[in-house]
Amino acid sequence: MASYDDVMSLSVRRGFLWPAAEMYGGFGGFYDYGHNGVLLRRRWEDLWTETFLGLSDNYYLIDTTTILPEAALKASGHVDHFTDVLVTCTRCGESYRGDHLLEAATHAEQEGLTPAEIDARIRELKIRCPNCKGELGPSREFNMMFPVGIGPTAKDRAYLRPETAQGVYLNFKREFAELVPLGASAGDRIRIAWAAEKNEPTAHEIPAEGLVDRGLPSWYVYHLLAVQRFYLAALRVPRDAFRFAELDEKERAFYNKVHFDIQVRQESLGGFREIGGVHYRTDHDLKGHESGSHAKQAVTFGTAKLVPHVLELSFGIDRNVWALLDLAFAKGDRLVLRLPPRLAPVTVAVFPLVNKDGLPERAEALFASLRKRFLAFYDDSGSIGRRYARMDEIGTPFSVTVDHETLEGKGVTVRERDSQKQIRVPEAELADTIAKLLSGETSVVP
Amino acid sequence: MASYDDVMSLSVRRGFLWPAAEMYGGFGGFYDYGHNGVLLRRRWEDLWTETFLGLSDNYYLIDTTTILPEAALKASGHVDHFTDVLVTCTRCGESYRGDHLLEAATHAEQEGLTPAEIDARIRELKIRCPNCKGELGPSREFNMMFPVGIGPTAKDRAYLRPETAQGVYLNFKREFAELVPLGASAGDRIRIAWAAEKNEPTAHEIPAEGLVDRGLPSWYVYHLLAVQRFYLAALRVPRDAFRFAELDEKERAFYNKVHFDIQVRQESLGGFREIGGVHYRTDHDLKGHESGSHAKQAVTFGTAKLVPHVLELSFGIDRNVWALLDLAFAKGDRLVLRLPPRLAPVTVAVFPLVNKDGLPERAEALFASLRKRFLAFYDDSGSIGRRYARMDEIGTPFSVTVDHETLEGKGVTVRERDSQKQIRVPEAELADTIAKLLSGETSVVP
Repeated sequence: MASYDDVMSLSVRRGFLWPAAEMYGGFGGFYDYGHNGVLLRRRWEDLWTETFLGLSDNYYLIDTTTILPEAALKASGHVDHFTDVLVTCTRCGESYRGDHLLEAATHAEQEGLTPAEIDARIRELKIRCPNCKGELGPSREFNMMFPVGIGPTAKDRAYLRPETAQGVYLNFKREFAELVPLGASAGDRIRIAWAAEKNEPTAHEIPAEGLVDRGLPSWYVYHLLAVQRFYLAALRVPRDAFRFAELDEKERAFYNKVHFDIQVRQESLGGFREIGGVHYRTDHDLKGHESGSHAKQAVTFGTAKLVPHVLELSFGIDRNVWALLDLAFAKGDRLVLRLPPRLAPVTVAVFPLVNKDGLPERAEALFASLRKRFLAFYDDSGSIGRRYARMDEIGTPFSVTVDHETLEGKGVTVRERDSQKQIRVPEAELADTIAKLLSGETSVVP
Repeated sequence: MASYDDVMSLSVRRGFLWPAAEMYGGFGGFYDYGHNGVLLRRRWEDLWTETFLGLSDNYYLIDTTTILPEAALKASGHVDHFTDVLVTCTRCGESYRGDHLLEAATHAEQEGLTPAEIDARIRELKIRCPNCKGELGPSREFNMMFPVGIGPTAKDRAYLRPETAQGVYLNFKREFAELVPLGASAGDRIRIAWAAEKNEPTAHEIPAEGLVDRGLPSWYVYHLLAVQRFYLAALRVPRDAFRFAELDEKERAFYNKVHFDIQVRQESLGGFREIGGVHYRTDHDLKGHESGSHAKQAVTFGTAKLVPHVLELSFGIDRNVWALLDLAFAKGDRLVLRLPPRLAPVTVAVFPLVNKDGLPERAEALFASLRKRFLAFYDDSGSIGRRYARMDEIGTPFSVTVDHETLEGKGVTVRERDSQKQIRVPEAELADTIAKLLSGETSVVP
C-alpha cells in the first residue's frame, strides 16, 4: 500500500520522475523523466509494441506530427466540441473548470454535465469562488486545445493535436492493407465494471461470449481480451487490480459509441484510475475527414466499397509508468520496487565485496562482459548493504557480488531482489544463468 | 546518387515517411512516419543510446516536457534573442524571412545578418515581394517560438520549448553525479571544414591533438571523436560523406562559444547538410537559470565550488533518418536500400517459393520460430522476384525461401540483399546463421 507521497518521493530520489521547472516554482501538471524513468518507459514501449504487433501481421506502426492544421480539427469535430465548462468569478475574475469545482465540493466524479446542469449544482451546493469567496458567474463552454500559428507571422491557424489518434485517420488510406474479420476468443473471462458501478472498487468476471451476447461487437471484445492479457500477462498487474470501466452516453467523448476505460487500481491515487481506453468511434473520423477534405476514404472489402469503422486502443504512457511504480512499490522492513524483471531500468548489478585484494578489477571485467548482453550497472561505493538497497529501490532483479571465494575459482553470488536469496554461480555460466532467471526458466528460490 | 524526389518517392511508397495532412492540401514542413519509418527511427535511437551511454558510466538519460514556462525561457535568453529577421511587403502585406529572400536571390547561405545588413542587401540586389512584386518594408526581429497559454483560461504564459536542451539545464542539479576530467584520445583524425570553407564540399583530416593545439578544449575534441565514431562505425556513413563544419561568430546561436555542425553529404539535398551540432555553451545556461530562479547551481569539484560549463551534443532525429535513407538509396538495374543490417525495419523475410505442395505451411512455421528472435516478415503474394524487390526497397538484409528441396530435408535458401548471392542452410541452423550474418561473423559471399 503506497501513498502518493511514497511513490513520488521514491521517484524523485531515484531519478524516475520529477516535477518540471521546479526551480521556477513548478509548473502544475508537468513532469520530467530522469534516467531510470526514461529506461522504464522505453521498456514499457518495447513490450507494448511486441504485444500488439504480435497479435497478427495486420497491425502497423505510425507516428504523426503533434501539430495539425485547423481544417483537419474542424472536420474531426474538435474545434466545435472539444470543450470543457468554465466558470468565472464575478468579483476577482479567476476562472475554474466547472467539474473540478463540483468534485472538490462533493468528492465524487462529475463528468458529462451541461453548463446549465453545472450552474444548477453550483447554486444547490452554494459553491463560491475558492480564491476570494466571490459569487461565480454563469458557466460557458471553452475549447481546451492549444492554438499555435504556423508560418513566419503565425498566420496559418493550427493546434497541438488534442488526441494522438487524429494523425492516424489522416493517413488511413496510406497504411490500409486489408480488412480482416476478427472474432472473440472464447474461454476467457474479462473484468468489467458497468457505468452505474464505476465508483465501486469491484468488477464482474464476464465470459467473452457473454459480452458479445450483451451487444458488444465481437472485434471489440477480441481487443478487450488482448488488452487485458497485456496487463495481466506481460505487465504482471494483479488480476484484482485490473478492470474495464464502462462510460455511459453522457460521459463518453462526442465521437465514441462504445467506450470502456482501462483502469488499474493505484493506492497512491485513491483506487481504480484510467490509464487508457478502448473506443469504438464508428465511421465518425473517416467520414468527417472525407467531407472536410473531399478525399474519398472508402476501401474495397470483398465485393463492397465501404468506409471502415474505427476501434481506437488508447494508452497513456505516463499514466502507465505511474501505475507500474505504484503497483511495484513494496515497503516492509526495506523498500523494494517489485517491477517485472523485463521492465526494470537495470537488469543486473555487479559489485566487488570490498575495494581491495583485486576484487574491483575482477568485478569490472565481469561487468564489461555482462553489459554486452544486459542493461548492467557497476557500483563499488558504500557498504554492500547500501548497494543492495539502492538496487532494490530501482527494482534491479539480480545483483552479482564478487568476493574472495571468486578469486579461488568458486564463482560469484547472485542475489534475487524479492526473496533476497542468493545462489553461487560459476563466472563462465553467469550470463546464461541471468538469461534463464530472466526468462523464468530457472529460479534463485529452489 | 539519389535525388530528393527519388528518396521521397521510395519513402512514400514503402511507408517510411509521408507529407503530413496531405488530404488537406499539405502542411508545409511537417511529415508523418509510416510503419517502416517508425522502426528505422527506433533502431537509430537504440544505437544512439547504446553508443553514448557506452562512453562511460557518467552519461545519463533525461526526457523533459515540451512546454516550458516563460520565466525559464526569459532567463535562458530565448524570449529576447531567439529571433529571425522578418520583412513585410508594403503593398500586399505578406511577410518573409530575410535570410530566405537573400538565399533565393543569391543561391548561397545567408546566416547571421542583422536587420540593417539585410535591408542593405535587399536594396543592393533590388529584391521585391515574391508575391506581388511590391516594395518590401524595413526588416525587423521576430521571435520564432510558439507561445501557448496554460491553465483553464490560458493566462499563464509558456512556450513550446525552442530547443530540447533547456529541460536538461533545469534538472541539472538532480542528475548531477560527478565531474569527470576528459582528455582527447590521440591517434585518430577528425574531418573538419572551417567556417570560411563551409560552401566547399571538402574536409581536412586533422589529428585530435592538432585541434587541441588550435585552442579547442580537449573534452570538446573527445566528443567530436565520439560523434564521428558513431557515424562512421555504428551508422556506417562513408568517411568522405561525413564532416564537422565550423560556424563563425556571426552564424552561431547567441549562447554558443564554439560550434561545429555535424554534417552528412546527401545528394538528395544538394550536398553536405547539418544533421546535428556540437555546442560549447559555456556557463550561459546554468548561470542564466541561477539568476532567473535564485536557485544556486554550483557543485563541488575537488576543493572548488563551481558552476559547470555545458557541452551540448545535439542530434536531429528526423534529419538523421533522412540521411540514412539518402545514403542507403542505390539504384542500378534494381532499387536497393543498403541500410546497415541492424537499422533495417525488417531483419529477415520468409517466403514459400509457391503457394502449394505444403510450402506455405512449412514457411509459416519457420517464420513463427524466427520472429521470436528477429524482426521477421512473411510474404506469399506475387512472384518470388517481386517479393525480393519489395524487401530490397525497405532494406531487408536477408530473405529466406522455402522450396521443394526444403521438403526433401535439404534446407532453405538465404539470399543476401546487396550481393543477391544465395546459400543453402539447414532449417535447424537457420536462426544461428542469421545471427552470425548480422554480427558479420559469417557471410553469404565466400
